Amino acid sequence: LRKGFPEVIFCQGKTAGQVAQIFKKLCCGRRSILGTRATREVFEAVREIYPDAVYHELARTIVVYRGEPPAKKGKILVMSAGTADMPVAEEAAVTAEVMGNEVKKAYDVGVAGIHRLLDKLDLIRWADVIIVVAGMEGALASVVGGLADQPVIAVPTSVGYGASFNGLSALLCMLNSCASGVGVVNIDNGFGAAALANAITQMIARANT
Amino acid sequence: LRKGFPEVIFCQGKTAGQVAQIFKKLCCGRRSILGTRATREVFEAVREIYPDAVYHELARTIVVYRGEPPAKKGKILVMSAGTADMPVAEEAAVTAEVMGNEVKKAYDVGVAGIHRLLDKLDLIRWADVIIVVAGMEGALASVVGGLADQPVIAVPTSVGYGASFNGLSALLCMLNSCASGVGVVNIDNGFGAAALANAITQMIARANT
Amino acid sequence: LRKGFPEVIFCQGKTAGQVAQIFKKLCCGRRSILGTRATREVFEAVREIYPDAVYHELARTIVVYRGEPPAKKGKILVMSAGTADMPVAEEAAVTAEVMGNEVKKAYDVGVAGIHRLLDKLDLIRWADVIIVVAGMEGALASVVGGLADQPVIAVPTSVGYGASFNGLSALLCMLNSCASGVGVVNIDNGFGAAALANAITQMIARANT
Amino acid sequence: LRKGFPEVIFCQGKTAGQVAQIFKKLCCGRRSILGTRATREVFEAVREIYPDAVYHELARTIVVYRGEPPAKKGKILVMSAGTADMPVAEEAAVTAEVMGNEVKKAYDVGVAGIHRLLDKLDLIRWADVIIVVAGMEGALASVVGGLADQPVIAVPTSVGYGASFNGLSALLCMLNSCASGVGVVNIDNGFGAAALANAITQMIARANT
Amino acid sequence: LRKGFPEVIFCQGKTAGQVAQIFKKLCCGRRSILGTRATREVFEAVREIYPDAVYHELARTIVVYRGEPPAKKGKILVMSAGTADMPVAEEAAVTAEVMGNEVKKAYDVGVAGIHRLLDKLDLIRWADVIIVVAGMEGALASVVGGLADQPVIAVPTSVGYGASFNGLSALLCMLNSCASGVGVVNIDNGFGAAALANAITQMIARANT
Amino acid sequence: LRKGFPEVIFCQGKTAGQVAQIFKKLCCGRRSILGTRATREVFEAVREIYPDAVYHELARTIVVYRGEPPAKKGKILVMSAGTADMPVAEEAAVTAEVMGNEVKKAYDVGVAGIHRLLDKLDLIRWADVIIVVAGMEGALASVVGGLADQPVIAVPTSVGYGASFNGLSALLCMLNSCASGVGVVNIDNGFGAAALANAITQMIARANT
Amino acid sequence: LRKGFPEVIFCQGKTAGQVAQIFKKLCCGRRSILGTRATREVFEAVREIYPDAVYHELARTIVVYRGEPPAKKGKILVMSAGTADMPVAEEAAVTAEVMGNEVKKAYDVGVAGIHRLLDKLDLIRWADVIIVVAGMEGALASVVGGLADQPVIAVPTSVGYGASFNGLSALLCMLNSCASGVGVVNIDNGFGAAALANAITQMIARANT
Amino acid sequence: LRKGFPEVIFCQGKTAGQVAQIFKKLCCGRRSILGTRATREVFEAVREIYPDAVYHELARTIVVYRGEPPAKKGKILVMSAGTADMPVAEEAAVTAEVMGNEVKKAYDVGVAGIHRLLDKLDLIRWADVIIVVAGMEGALASVVGGLADQPVIAVPTSVGYGASFNGLSALLCMLNSCASGVGVVNIDNGFGAAALANAITQMIARANT
Ligand SMILES: Nc1ncnc2c1ncn2[C@@H]1O[C@H](COP(=O)(O)O)[C@@H](O)[C@H]1O
Ligand SMILES: Nc1ncnc2c1ncn2[C@@H]1O[C@H](COP(=O)(O)O)[C@@H](O)[C@H]1O
Ligand SMILES: Nc1ncnc2c1ncn2[C@@H]1O[C@H](COP(=O)(O)O)[C@@H](O)[C@H]1O
Ligand SMILES: Nc1ncnc2c1ncn2[C@@H]1O[C@H](COP(=O)(O)O)[C@@H](O)[C@H]1O
Ligand SMILES: [Mg+2]
Ligand SMILES: [Mg+2]
Ligand SMILES: [Mg+2]
Ligand SMILES: [Mg+2]
Ligand SMILES: [Mg+2]
Ligand SMILES: [Mg+2]
Ligand SMILES: [Mg+2]
Ligand SMILES: [Mg+2]
Repeated sequence: LRKGFPEVIFCQGKTAGQVAQIFKKLCCGRRSILGTRATREVFEAVREIYPDAVYHELARTIVVYRGEPPAKKGKILVMSAGTADMPVAEEAAVTAEVMGNEVKKAYDVGVAGIHRLLDKLDLIRWADVIIVVAGMEGALASVVGGLADQPVIAVPTSVGYGASFNGLSALLCMLNSCASGVGVVNIDNGFGAAALANAITQMIARANT
Repeated sequence: LRKGFPEVIFCQGKTAGQVAQIFKKLCCGRRSILGTRATREVFEAVREIYPDAVYHELARTIVVYRGEPPAKKGKILVMSAGTADMPVAEEAAVTAEVMGNEVKKAYDVGVAGIHRLLDKLDLIRWADVIIVVAGMEGALASVVGGLADQPVIAVPTSVGYGASFNGLSALLCMLNSCASGVGVVNIDNGFGAAALANAITQMIARANT
Repeated sequence: LRKGFPEVIFCQGKTAGQVAQIFKKLCCGRRSILGTRATREVFEAVREIYPDAVYHELARTIVVYRGEPPAKKGKILVMSAGTADMPVAEEAAVTAEVMGNEVKKAYDVGVAGIHRLLDKLDLIRWADVIIVVAGMEGALASVVGGLADQPVIAVPTSVGYGASFNGLSALLCMLNSCASGVGVVNIDNGFGAAALANAITQMIARANT
Repeated sequence: LRKGFPEVIFCQGKTAGQVAQIFKKLCCGRRSILGTRATREVFEAVREIYPDAVYHELARTIVVYRGEPPAKKGKILVMSAGTADMPVAEEAAVTAEVMGNEVKKAYDVGVAGIHRLLDKLDLIRWADVIIVVAGMEGALASVVGGLADQPVIAVPTSVGYGASFNGLSALLCMLNSCASGVGVVNIDNGFGAAALANAITQMIARANT
Repeated sequence: LRKGFPEVIFCQGKTAGQVAQIFKKLCCGRRSILGTRATREVFEAVREIYPDAVYHELARTIVVYRGEPPAKKGKILVMSAGTADMPVAEEAAVTAEVMGNEVKKAYDVGVAGIHRLLDKLDLIRWADVIIVVAGMEGALASVVGGLADQPVIAVPTSVGYGASFNGLSALLCMLNSCASGVGVVNIDNGFGAAALANAITQMIARANT
Repeated sequence: LRKGFPEVIFCQGKTAGQVAQIFKKLCCGRRSILGTRATREVFEAVREIYPDAVYHELARTIVVYRGEPPAKKGKILVMSAGTADMPVAEEAAVTAEVMGNEVKKAYDVGVAGIHRLLDKLDLIRWADVIIVVAGMEGALASVVGGLADQPVIAVPTSVGYGASFNGLSALLCMLNSCASGVGVVNIDNGFGAAALANAITQMIARANT
Repeated sequence: LRKGFPEVIFCQGKTAGQVAQIFKKLCCGRRSILGTRATREVFEAVREIYPDAVYHELARTIVVYRGEPPAKKGKILVMSAGTADMPVAEEAAVTAEVMGNEVKKAYDVGVAGIHRLLDKLDLIRWADVIIVVAGMEGALASVVGGLADQPVIAVPTSVGYGASFNGLSALLCMLNSCASGVGVVNIDNGFGAAALANAITQMIARANT
Repeated sequence: LRKGFPEVIFCQGKTAGQVAQIFKKLCCGRRSILGTRATREVFEAVREIYPDAVYHELARTIVVYRGEPPAKKGKILVMSAGTADMPVAEEAAVTAEVMGNEVKKAYDVGVAGIHRLLDKLDLIRWADVIIVVAGMEGALASVVGGLADQPVIAVPTSVGYGASFNGLSALLCMLNSCASGVGVVNIDNGFGAAALANAITQMIARANT
């Protein structure tokens, strides 16, 4: 059951010690372990237990790889609008990879400079599922949704100031999008977007076999 | 391009005459036409042009079937929590069918009576994609997301009163869901949920061939 | 003072009789009179006093032309995303014209189909000022702002449903736009957008002489 | 009057010195004293006055026991959805115990994994009153309310991120629940939930005698 | 199971015909039937099936009594602040009675005239549970909660204008109450308040036997 | 002009140096100077210039007395609900005194214990104007408004947690009050309440002469 | 007690018959009766009982004068920004007059044309208390507060559209005003503003005697 | 293309090192570079690369001047209401200057003291475009919009407390302004206001040649 799906630990709001304990309990499994929202301090504590644990600074993730690397189920493209949206985009990218997907990235392609986006049409065609991460330019999900026939998963981020209201503006913008084929996850939830994308590629992989 | 995808007309806020005109313009095509948010009055006007147009009262949809019925791309389950959520659920069901999917329904399975939901486990296993429609019980998306490995698309509805705030409560509840694999569309957007579900089954169908 | 600026009457929330009275009081002037948010019933009452009054159904405006037609001060392009945004767009267009500007229109160019927008690059280059009207696709202001160097005035509309929250979503989206050179007016305020655009073309005209 | 009800001090927003002073003033009483929202620093100050004061780290409570331990009035079950909801759940549990109730706990039983909840049916049947504490899974109150005939008190927590909006999402979700027999208290108000639960068990105890 | 609990039908948003059908389906039961949010038109349709159905105009409820009248489980006091809050208060009162409780009422006792409230102390002492219904004076729940040791169930109503924001103001006011022993239900949910009150009196009744 | 009205400096968001500079500039005047929202650090800087400056710790105010102490214009009662509301209440009290009023205080008289409030009826009768300061018990303004015929000025505070939403709950509660004769100022604006109270007593004083 | 204060009936949400009944019950009194929020239909019903009842169309008030006309207690100026704000301004004016005050009016003096406001300086100096009524130009309260030393009572109105959010915008604007001496009442609450103004003039009158 | 427009770097949320890197990459260009939202620490890092970089403390901007100083395109007046609004006003002023405009300033001219504003009429007449920056006195945009025929760009700031809700109050106030010719940008977005003003003066300059 849930083959190829790692154990997942949401580290935010827990102490380094608590997180390390939870990692330890899961230790004999043959599934990989993914920790999200992890500070470097949390990582240090985990590394004492799993010396081969890997930390992705920007994504704030810890991964302990176990078992055979899974066959790649599907092709997931992660796009983001601004530099500041990158941590959320990276969380999505790491998660998608750990779950067994081929991942490509197209960052800094905000709609205020539409040509940068149009340059990525090949990447868009390549993907099975597209994840769009944006804070100040929620509009990106709408434009990508219009360009692509594949399922698009939109992740609003809390990046911005003033009337961005911590991501509410991007969230509403993405929900109102006229482009069909777009689903939205919680603000800053890069993990959730990747989990949904993986649920999709898993169905595709199942069909392939 | 966009094979098996019907022409779609959003009828809300347009007069019967305007809608009929738009249906007329599309007339020579070989693709089916789907009208959403259509009143019976709008339907009457459309029927003058397409005597074979079909009206789904509850779903408020008009369908003019054209071309070969498409091979069924995938299996979509539409679930809803309360009786009053049915119009949105039906909009999703009709849309999913017109786009070429096999559709099953499990209505009135709110979480306040969890056993009614657990009775539907077979249906849940059957589906490629699950659409969950709920207003007063946004919780349903969370529970279904936990039971299913497949992609789940949640549609909050504006059903309810008081602190439901026209669907805002259900929307927030669905976005915060801890179950992974859940994406959300706009309040009352049954059409959008089906379009996203169809984007997914299309990828599955492509993998099958 | 305020040459070329018509007398303006906001008809909403006033009876047909009250509006007619206000039109009457302004009668001896040499400036044109513009009534906004006027129903046909209000227009009928006004026409009894000014038989040459002109009603624009969609824009819900009444115009009584007086004085010499003003020399065209500038070139204003009014763009809109959806069909349902047209009344607001037309209010802007009529206002801009009555104030003495050359007006062109590019409607139904939502970002979900970006090519329709890219087809309008000539029009965009033509304009001195661009007004962008959108409800469900607030994103349009962002994309146009990126394509154009001229001042862009964004008008959110209350068109949409669910999480559009009567225009709030479009408003926030437009305010957060990363494209520079975009200013926003109140939801559905086509008149205000045109008045601001006219304040700009007036400065340009002054420079020309 | 208010027999078995401890003196209660809300420590948040007061200095350690101020809290110690308030504890001191209450000293000759024969009722226990409960301090809520107390930091360890506050506790140190109180312990100087009452060396037998007890600190519950997670619950952030201080208790000074006085008088006879009250006979147990009723059976209160405290359930919580996520690990991060535990401080609020513990505040409820400590309060309920100090007020003279038998307390059992069922933590980490979120609805995204419904089987963990169904495993607790015996506990649910055992209780006179059930307190449900949840932040990201407000849905839990709804499901428990459907399973139980007893009064259910729901406590939304500010745990979560993004569209949880500091507990607003859980609050609205709990208020809209279709399950009957559910009352809601303020976000993070574990104390208030226990006080209401105790008001109920007190009526039960009165009936018993 | 759920002895003494009537079948309940939420009539709002259903046609007279639909409601009548639902009433019909439940017909052979030995439990009473309660319809809430019912218009007179809905009642007329139900009366064709159950000639002995009773309509409470103000409460907008329909009751079909069946089986033995249940022994009175407990004493429920329904208080309300203003005249306009009466429909919600009556919904609570009817529901509480049908569920087998002795009900007393104290209406029009808003806190702006505190003496009217203090005159009701005897009634307050009489009750096992108190339901407080208020729209413009959410404060009432707080004052009653302070006067009473019994559980208090607060029902905000959508009565008011301006900054009442359809009951949001009363809801927030009630949730922030400093009086302990107060739980809140959804805006205008008189039914839900009575159901919770009944869940409490049922526990008391069980203790009595 | 504005006799008896001190110079006022809003210190929040300014550095100690900047505030000291502003105090210095005003130095030759014969009017007193009042600094609000001042930290102790700011006070130290001001004292270097005015060694006789007085700091009120709780009120966070600095006063430099100059000129004759003004004759007392009126009697102002400052009431507050909770301990945590005291800083705002004290800001109001200091301001009212500096402006030349006789001030009395009744703190900690929340409505959850109505008898503490009723004990203050003499004070209420004594006052010309009453200022009511409350965060978690906005209800207090309503009850006092009902007891008093004099003008009541309500100050919501940001004290509280959860659904207090930083004072929004108290603000709305106070605005919806059914008691007539109540005006509201901004959240935490003790200064503003006293300034309005003083505007009233000034009119009274003028009538007296 | 409460000399010169009429009986007040809030007619909104009551049937013509109900209001007439309430008027009837108060009939033998020697105080005048004021009905607010009354439709013409309600007035017709009241006139059957009190043939001398007076209806103010715009203010939507009914007055039944009884007893000696009270000596004028004070001078109240009612200002309003826009034509559409007049009903609320008139409610305030009628209420203030019935309560025994001399009332003057300065309507249509919005800040967008500041000279119209500056023309009213004499009126502003004349008043004891100033009531400022505004929907789209909440700014007016701020400007008047700066010009006047007297107490200013601000009434936001629900007039406007789009981002006026039914008066919320004006309400917030008035609360944030930097001018001291301004208190705010509920949106559209002309009655409440006048009642507060009257509480002030009553204190002044008392000082005069 | 985009002649006279500097390269712009939004420094907020980036480390000193990251910002320095971005400045470096742009180094060979002949356009000036503007960094906004820069701390002093960020500036120090940039100065290591460009020793002639200029830091504006209050505006939090870094400018590296390159190429010929551009001919002044237009006259921009920056007005602000309170002292605390100055950082945003300075960001606008610096940006407008770097983009090649003549800039004048009128600070501390809030509407609560209208005469300070009326003293600036000459400056207002001088300008081609006016930028109005205000937090607690959003009203200022409305008054200036009424006094001036030129385009007015309003910038709400997050300055204030309580019901200012981090700039939301000022934003709404500015959007609802009745004065025509006013456009609004995001809260605290001084840069964006200047960019829009510059887009306008650029059109004027083009007309001049
Ligand atoms: N006034 C009411 N407000 C909220 N929920 C209600 C109300 N009346 C009945 N209900 C609930 O609605 C359920 C029936 O809903 P339905 O099956 O849609 O008729 C009942 O079991 C009650 O839990
Ligand atoms: N605590 C306060 N809250 C709101 N406004 C205040 C406060 N204290 C002073 N003020 C106002 O702020 C003005 C001074 O502001 P400033 O010039 O920035 O020091 C005074 O004239 C008062 O009207
Ligand atoms: N327009 C109004 N807005 C708010 N409260 C009002 C208004 N008119 C009257 N009231 C209050 O409502 C009370 C009467 O309410 P009622 O008993 O429901 O008629 C009066 O004593 C007033 O305090
Ligand atoms: N203070 C500011 N607020 C909003 N947008 C800004 C600001 N400063 C610069 N920008 C925009 O941000 C872009 C650069 O963003 P970045 O690539 O993240 O440095 C510029 O082209 C501007 O359009
Ligand atoms: Mg698409
Ligand atoms: Mg799942
Ligand atoms: Mg641009
Ligand atoms: Mg239950
Ligand atoms: Mg109590
Ligand atoms: Mg009073
Ligand atoms: Mg003043
Ligand atoms: Mg202007």
